[in-house]
Amino acid sequence: MRFDEAYSGKVFIASRPDWEEADAILYGMPMDWTVSYRPGSRFGPARIREVSIGLEEYSPYLDRELDEVHFFDAGDIPLPFGNPQKSLDMIEEYVDSILEKGKFPLGMGGEHLVSWPVIKAMYKKYPDLAIIHMDAHTDLRVDYEGEPLSHSTPIRKAAELIGPGNVYSFGIRSGMKEEFEWAKENGMHISKFEVLEPLKAVLPKLAGRPVYVTIDIDVLDPAHAPGTGTVDAGGITSKELLASIHEIARSDVNVVGGDLVEVAPVYDHSEQTANTASKLIREMLLGWVK
Amino acid sequence: MRFDEAYSGKVFIASRPDWEEADAILYGMPMDWTVSYRPGSRFGPARIREVSIGLEEYSPYLDRELDEVHFFDAGDIPLPFGNPQKSLDMIEEYVDSILEKGKFPLGMGGEHLVSWPVIKAMYKKYPDLAIIHMDAHTDLRVDYEGEPLSHSTPIRKAAELIGPGNVYSFGIRSGMKEEFEWAKENGMHISKFEVLEPLKAVLPKLAGRPVYVTIDIDVLDPAHAPGTGTVDAGGITSKELLASIHEIARSDVNVVGGDLVEVAPVYDHSEQTANTASKLIREMLLGWVK
Amino acid sequence: MRFDEAYSGKVFIASRPDWEEADAILYGMPMDWTVSYRPGSRFGPARIREVSIGLEEYSPYLDRELDEVHFFDAGDIPLPFGNPQKSLDMIEEYVDSILEKGKFPLGMGGEHLVSWPVIKAMYKKYPDLAIIHMDAHTDLRVDYEGEPLSHSTPIRKAAELIGPGNVYSFGIRSGMKEEFEWAKENGMHISKFEVLEPLKAVLPKLAGRPVYVTIDIDVLDPAHAPGTGTVDAGGITSKELLASIHEIARSDVNVVGGDLVEVAPVYDHSEQTANTASKLIREMLLGWVK
Amino acid sequence: MRFDEAYSGKVFIASRPDWEEADAILYGMPMDWTVSYRPGSRFGPARIREVSIGLEEYSPYLDRELDEVHFFDAGDIPLPFGNPQKSLDMIEEYVDSILEKGKFPLGMGGEHLVSWPVIKAMYKKYPDLAIIHMDAHTDLRVDYEGEPLSHSTPIRKAAELIGPGNVYSFGIRSGMKEEFEWAKENGMHISKFEVLEPLKAVLPKLAGRPVYVTIDIDVLDPAHAPGTGTVDAGGITSKELLASIHEIARSDVNVVGGDLVEVAPVYDHSEQTANTASKLIREMLLGWVK
Amino acid sequence: MRFDEAYSGKVFIASRPDWEEADAILYGMPMDWTVSYRPGSRFGPARIREVSIGLEEYSPYLDRELDEVHFFDAGDIPLPFGNPQKSLDMIEEYVDSILEKGKFPLGMGGEHLVSWPVIKAMYKKYPDLAIIHMDAHTDLRVDYEGEPLSHSTPIRKAAELIGPGNVYSFGIRSGMKEEFEWAKENGMHISKFEVLEPLKAVLPKLAGRPVYVTIDIDVLDPAHAPGTGTVDAGGITSKELLASIHEIARSDVNVVGGDLVEVAPVYDHSEQTANTASKLIREMLLGWVK
Amino acid sequence: MRFDEAYSGKVFIASRPDWEEADAILYGMPMDWTVSYRPGSRFGPARIREVSIGLEEYSPYLDRELDEVHFFDAGDIPLPFGNPQKSLDMIEEYVDSILEKGKFPLGMGGEHLVSWPVIKAMYKKYPDLAIIHMDAHTDLRVDYEGEPLSHSTPIRKAAELIGPGNVYSFGIRSGMKEEFEWAKENGMHISKFEVLEPLKAVLPKLAGRPVYVTIDIDVLDPAHAPGTGTVDAGGITSKELLASIHEIARSDVNVVGGDLVEVAPVYDHSEQTANTASKLIREMLLGWVK
Repeated sequence: MRFDEAYSGKVFIASRPDWEEADAILYGMPMDWTVSYRPGSRFGPARIREVSIGLEEYSPYLDRELDEVHFFDAGDIPLPFGNPQKSLDMIEEYVDSILEKGKFPLGMGGEHLVSWPVIKAMYKKYPDLAIIHMDAHTDLRVDYEGEPLSHSTPIRKAAELIGPGNVYSFGIRSGMKEEFEWAKENGMHISKFEVLEPLKAVLPKLAGRPVYVTIDIDVLDPAHAPGTGTVDAGGITSKELLASIHEIARSDVNVVGGDLVEVAPVYDHSEQTANTASKLIREMLLGWVK
Repeated sequence: MRFDEAYSGKVFIASRPDWEEADAILYGMPMDWTVSYRPGSRFGPARIREVSIGLEEYSPYLDRELDEVHFFDAGDIPLPFGNPQKSLDMIEEYVDSILEKGKFPLGMGGEHLVSWPVIKAMYKKYPDLAIIHMDAHTDLRVDYEGEPLSHSTPIRKAAELIGPGNVYSFGIRSGMKEEFEWAKENGMHISKFEVLEPLKAVLPKLAGRPVYVTIDIDVLDPAHAPGTGTVDAGGITSKELLASIHEIARSDVNVVGGDLVEVAPVYDHSEQTANTASKLIREMLLGWVK
Repeated sequence: MRFDEAYSGKVFIASRPDWEEADAILYGMPMDWTVSYRPGSRFGPARIREVSIGLEEYSPYLDRELDEVHFFDAGDIPLPFGNPQKSLDMIEEYVDSILEKGKFPLGMGGEHLVSWPVIKAMYKKYPDLAIIHMDAHTDLRVDYEGEPLSHSTPIRKAAELIGPGNVYSFGIRSGMKEEFEWAKENGMHISKFEVLEPLKAVLPKLAGRPVYVTIDIDVLDPAHAPGTGTVDAGGITSKELLASIHEIARSDVNVVGGDLVEVAPVYDHSEQTANTASKLIREMLLGWVK
Repeated sequence: MRFDEAYSGKVFIASRPDWEEADAILYGMPMDWTVSYRPGSRFGPARIREVSIGLEEYSPYLDRELDEVHFFDAGDIPLPFGNPQKSLDMIEEYVDSILEKGKFPLGMGGEHLVSWPVIKAMYKKYPDLAIIHMDAHTDLRVDYEGEPLSHSTPIRKAAELIGPGNVYSFGIRSGMKEEFEWAKENGMHISKFEVLEPLKAVLPKLAGRPVYVTIDIDVLDPAHAPGTGTVDAGGITSKELLASIHEIARSDVNVVGGDLVEVAPVYDHSEQTANTASKLIREMLLGWVK
Repeated sequence: MRFDEAYSGKVFIASRPDWEEADAILYGMPMDWTVSYRPGSRFGPARIREVSIGLEEYSPYLDRELDEVHFFDAGDIPLPFGNPQKSLDMIEEYVDSILEKGKFPLGMGGEHLVSWPVIKAMYKKYPDLAIIHMDAHTDLRVDYEGEPLSHSTPIRKAAELIGPGNVYSFGIRSGMKEEFEWAKENGMHISKFEVLEPLKAVLPKLAGRPVYVTIDIDVLDPAHAPGTGTVDAGGITSKELLASIHEIARSDVNVVGGDLVEVAPVYDHSEQTANTASKLIREMLLGWVK
Repeated sequence: MRFDEAYSGKVFIASRPDWEEADAILYGMPMDWTVSYRPGSRFGPARIREVSIGLEEYSPYLDRELDEVHFFDAGDIPLPFGNPQKSLDMIEEYVDSILEKGKFPLGMGGEHLVSWPVIKAMYKKYPDLAIIHMDAHTDLRVDYEGEPLSHSTPIRKAAELIGPGNVYSFGIRSGMKEEFEWAKENGMHISKFEVLEPLKAVLPKLAGRPVYVTIDIDVLDPAHAPGTGTVDAGGITSKELLASIHEIARSDVNVVGGDLVEVAPVYDHSEQTANTASKLIREMLLGWVK
């Protein structure tokens, strides 16, 4: 006889016990081997699950409870330490298996490079895919000091795959001049500094389209998310990020998957970052999984 | 010969030396034994006092100095560890003794359950009492996994005692669906997410009435109060909370007591939460004790 | 499909999947509501499991691997916050159920009071039970400021139940004068300051007897276990504690159960205490479960 | 052969290798010996340099790159521990040497008292100097418990030197009543609580004048800068402070020098304060050095 | 009515309420302005008092209780920030007043320079004074980068005052070559690395003499005292330091005063250093005050 | 004019300014991308340099000063994030260049895998090379979950290259059963748990031979080195590790290079691990570079 699993931080609160019957799959991608600054996001998913026991299952924002969403927390994909290519292959293969069954994939990073194989999988299924990207950083580098597999490159790879015009970035406040110029020249949308107001303007344009939403926790100001690899002042509040998630939920876009990446617990003694991430995951589940 | 007491964190800065001649009594309720998540608020009052030495005695918000308020810091009530019922009885008895002498009680928690015996004492003296409650959480549970004495229940108990229509909650962003429904069905006021603006609308209705104000520090966003048991993203700023205290001070309500609870220092290495709490206590003293 | 459970900190490394076929049961007692100083040990068991992923399954001390021991990690008993009596009853009942099936109970605290109901259960099964107790503190109080259910009282209760002459305490370096005197007057064994050498002298006397071993992590010097409620300088090293566990394993006593209590992770940013505890649990399993 | 200096945190990112050919000099003033509360700002400059490796060299706010600014990071002035007067003399002498060569001095504290000798040096060169001061505290004391050389006095000294009417303080939310009164009586500008809006009103009045800008990091709310000696709730966001720096950059004032003081890394485990400071330094360089 | 003072960390546990009738005076010297590395020891005395509530009043080492010692905790001397000379003068004057009344002075630092004025006062009263000094560092510099008032100089000053042959240093593992040579040439005793064994050899030589004992907490290995300004590997254990205090207590020397310095709480999140210091203070009181 | 570099933590204290004329080269290998548990050792070398300013340049153990050793701190090799193979190639190439000039290489990790390319370079120059290895872990795996480039494999690779009989491991207390067996079967020396005593027995056998010494900081007990990726209880003290370095220095072996790896500063708020590492580096320089 085993006691209630949630208490021991085993799975995200209110996870269903069975993969097959779930509508959405929550999974961790515990990889941080290509980060150029502070590592540690490999422990993000586990800590987000652990602190989820402090959450209520009801959202007063969306007036919906987690038991109205059938999701299954699959745990962390056992990625091979220090091998980026193999890690990305395993992620893509796993997301393929989720999509094959018509389930909604919701990923937790890990560094932002993990979004790249997910987007590849999504694009195979949804050729008219659009991406909503919330982040402090452009992530539009071709490589990082020679390495094409880097946490600074996923959005560039995604933009080249699905077309820069289908990528919408929000909250960006850091990047190389060349990255901003490339975006501009190639018709990619970048809203600098702000998220909610420009998002309101963009959402109607995406009505009816399949949209993948990737959120780097560092779109938040360091005050709201100190536990991440590369903090950058001047970000948005958790209130604005919650409102942005809700804005998407209430729009006419067809959210077909999402992720939340770059939570690195060791830099945040208070655990506020992991707690905030667990609340964001709850709202993503309640708002985006119909 | 003993040196200046404030330096050693002995009492809150500018405390008078004598209980009898004080108009207000500041007291600690170092109890955290019923909390369902992270304990540690038993050390809140002591740390708030300790860091008060970093405060100025003058408020540029209210243009008033602490020596214009005659208050006495009584220290912490020596509550018995692990015995909730006896702890609550001791608190009620102590607040009775304060009210008997016509003094203003200002309490520091400790978990939020400590407000329940205080409210019982207040209600005996002020039968037309109203409560202003600022918190991230509804605290309206009947019990917590079977325990009626829990930090999740004090506002429910208070509402049942003085009538739900006399309780006004602000900033609420977490609770069970049933709690929100109970409040609605029973005519209790809940302002979700915001504090200052809805408070401005409510205060005129309470003009002239005796009001007890209970503030859970987690009404603040975790960015502003990481040092608390249950952090919850999407909260208000310390600027808004200060303004709310001042709004009450300038209104026509008759504040007859108050408390600030749930400061748990161990989760906040920077001590910003305790520092913020000590500033809030100063403003409560300067604004509410006439 | 769920990924490897151990990675997400779900269960202690190498736990078997089935309660029924296990020879030993590892279980958590997440209670800290009666502690008189720093709370937080409720999170001990969960963190010990989480960091167990950093362990090797092989012990070079005992030349034995975890898969030679059939144990099942049952998770944490869902104890009611703030209700000591009910918590103790639930623990006793659970240990009864383990003993009924002839399995070896290995508990993780939580505060030291949790050992009291375990010992009650053990004594029902083993009337000639002896207790080996390693701790910085006597834990021989009758009550703590009036409360008989306190983390300062479990060994007194145990001694009164099974007879003081059957209790052997080691490493004690803190207590009231009355406690030491009571032990002396009642024929209870107390080795002050040291563990390994006096243990070597005592073990032959206990040969063949059923012995329950309760270890308070604070028997270690604070250098070796900063993450506990009441640190006390002058303790033993983790090397000595490991050697003591091995000494018992190699002796002729019949270890019938054990526990490791008072790990409070929040006071130890480096997580060395939880890591050390997870290694101690491994050695207890490998050394004591035949 | 020595590897890239920036990686090891040796100098601020993009510093030129040569003092002589630089247009601006970045220098540290590692002094904290007169602070009345929490020391530690002596390590501010070193940590700001170290974390600058996480910065991009391009500012999307100002559309300018660091290699367009010729600056040299001179390291820390080797100030004598515990000797305030000699420390101040060394700072003044060093800034004299910078100004003599027509370079722009940008200082990093250290406690706020270090700004006093800098201002003395500036005033010798610019007799019509005005000061923009952003801070939580007035810093207008004559002395602190008898000590005229204190981190609570630099703005008073500056005001008396260059005339109170030439000093503009913003964001002030703490001080003694006497300090506010002195400012008022002597025609010194103090904007309480806010920075950006009142700054917009003041800048046109200073058009064409040489202005020194001194920023105490504690003008930020503790949520945005926990790593400082005296945190004080109710401050501005890093977004507002960045916008204020940019507002000055785009105005018609002639910024002739500046500093950023009171970063005390030890109180901020996440290093967000040092990271924010390094971004502020980048924006000050890009915005103010023409 | 004020509650028990000890709970709020007001005074050291078991302090008597009255200066006049006390045999020993415990006092804090919260000064850290001349330290060359990490400041913060100004908060040492206050934190030591605060955590003393976790102590038992009985010592199983000495079989004595604190109520057998009549001591008074006088709080912290209000030293002027940043003014070393005036601070030292105030300390000397205060210790003079203690000695005048025939009481035993027990000081808590603060940086080690605070021992210098105490020793001056002691020497005035006891012309045949000897000093026992336990420390990681020689503290024999003439000055530190030109400053004669430095935390690196107190033992040199003391040795020059009372004669190097009357100073006995133990546990020393760091210093300049010149310092070790000066000691050797001038007949001062230095035991490198070890404390207990060489102390046993020295004590008989000091039988009957008045001895002042100054302990720098960094004589402990960083494992046992991480919370200090200058940690240095290879030190002794807290067990050895306790035994050394007891060895002195049981010897025939006449201990006439003592101090414990350099506890800097901010570097030790677990608070083990302050806890250890509070236990050391208890043993010094119980062992040295007859 | 640039101020003293050491103060800003730019280079290790007492580093010479010139590569060419140095006898020893100190260099960093900031790589942590293959670690299986907690990353962060990439910041080890930078932090060790930074805290070296707290060191004395004189060793009372060896009676020698750093200016008697001509060494140059080359900074960190700019390794490509997330690319293990290329990183190892760069390290090997750099060490080749050091050896070519007849200089002594002293490396700072980074994860332990960085020792592998160094040993390859050493072996090319010294075909009769022996290795002294101090570590908590065997590091003898063939691969880690399929990855041959892992921090768990360097000693296996080294043993296969130079012959297992030429590798001497000390202090080992963790590994898979297969690793211990492989060592035994292949004639490799492993001293479990202890370092100093078995080292004394081994050194005479290596007299006259060229020896490379690789030290994983986790050979220390977690009490002495909490700031590392994989802490493991039951280790040696820093006193024993210092003595072991000195034992080698005084022996007849010909130390031709060395390294100290796995310092991960983020897990050690007190910075004791980095401070200890900087002292170990000083002793290695003073003891091993003739």
